[in-house]
Amino acid sequence: MRTLVLVAHPNFESSSSQNFLRAGAQTLGEVRYRILDQIYPDFRIDVNEERRQLDWADQLIFQFPLYWYSAPASLKVWQDQVWQTADETHLPNYAGKTLGLVVTTGVAKKAFQAGGAEAFTLSEFLRPFEATARKLQFTYRPPFILDQFQYASESQKMTWLIQYQQLLTMTDTDFGAQQDWLVQRLRQLQVKSPDDTLLAGILGAIQMNQDDLADLQSALAMMKGDL
Amino acid sequence: MRTLVLVAHPNFESSSSQNFLRAGAQTLGEVRYRILDQIYPDFRIDVNEERRQLDWADQLIFQFPLYWYSAPASLKVWQDQVWQTADETHLPNYAGKTLGLVVTTGVAKKAFQAGGAEAFTLSEFLRPFEATARKLQFTYRPPFILDQFQYASESQKMTWLIQYQQLLTMTDTDFGAQQDWLVQRLRQLQVKSPDDTLLAGILGAIQMNQDDLADLQSALAMMKGDL
Repeated sequence: MRTLVLVAHPNFESSSSQNFLRAGAQTLGEVRYRILDQIYPDFRIDVNEERRQLDWADQLIFQFPLYWYSAPASLKVWQDQVWQTADETHLPNYAGKTLGLVVTTGVAKKAFQAGGAEAFTLSEFLRPFEATARKLQFTYRPPFILDQFQYASESQKMTWLIQYQQLLTMTDTDFGAQQDWLVQRLRQLQVKSPDDTLLAGILGAIQMNQDDLADLQSALAMMKGDL
Repeated sequence: MRTLVLVAHPNFESSSSQNFLRAGAQTLGEVRYRILDQIYPDFRIDVNEERRQLDWADQLIFQFPLYWYSAPASLKVWQDQVWQTADETHLPNYAGKTLGLVVTTGVAKKAFQAGGAEAFTLSEFLRPFEATARKLQFTYRPPFILDQFQYASESQKMTWLIQYQQLLTMTDTDFGAQQDWLVQRLRQLQVKSPDDTLLAGILGAIQMNQDDLADLQSALAMMKGDL
């Protein structure tokens, strides 16, 4: 799978989370990494080049810190210019491609809920991206959130790293198919080296994916109950 | 009330709805109109000047067409730069000021609902602005939406014009206090000239406000029932 990562961050080099993620992507094969604020410090987007990059990719990743509950301006300039059309009947069509978001936030995930400090969910704040994906016929992946990176434990960071690498290299379908095989192998490894941090990270990542699946199933059950 | 209108629109002069709104604002007293894409065609915001303008205002209006379910990039550049802070403890505090949105959309309002063509509500798409207002302690007014301006009847446009002028010059509280007095006067006028378009527009605007109030009351009743 060919993945194009577009990073929007006005101070990329001074961001520990962004540097961590970039390092995690460097060993991967078909991943292109483009830091918009470095390529276009004056917001002068090369529209044709950006469209070529996007044509190449099977998956587009928008990666950014949350600024005013949205992406930094460089990404909005990119969207407005690269996807500019005369009218709705000439929208680009990216059916077959996937759009994923990688969002870092200085606020804890649990603040993003009704009654929490931020009052609304991240899914709600990111609706403009979800609806844009829908409009352009991208498949929209669940946003990948890294919250309070600077306070995260090494084990948490390792889990995020594995999940990030999975996001950049596997579709959701691929992942489902490979999961059983992976769990088998890891359990064998864990018997041999129960204190290995990387291994604990990988098993943590899988555990979180299984939790997500359980959440989804109970959400679906609730929705069916409501209808 | 001093109102600062910040318009984000890459092609302001060719927009019939924006020209209509600007004409409607010209007769009003303490209203400043700033078209960001004209003042800053290269996105080079004069941060100090923008902060001075905002200090002057009791009310800030963000006015824009919906681009990718959000504002055009010029407004995000403005937000990122004018409200940039070292950290969350140094956020500006606009308690006592009001933030309102004026949003034009080429799609009919009814598309913005579950099961509609756009799948989500405009309130959801505009959550980043609502949460930003909350974070900076602005009072957030209900977004004022003008949908499919080019197909609107003259009577609809007149209604919008009155509502827009009310938005720029009155707080919600002012409006409540003046409504009874206004209805009295208008009924007297209507008896005299039942075919007057302006009058029909004004009465339409009041009717819509009363509908909004009724909607709110039934929404509240439903929420109480749910809890």
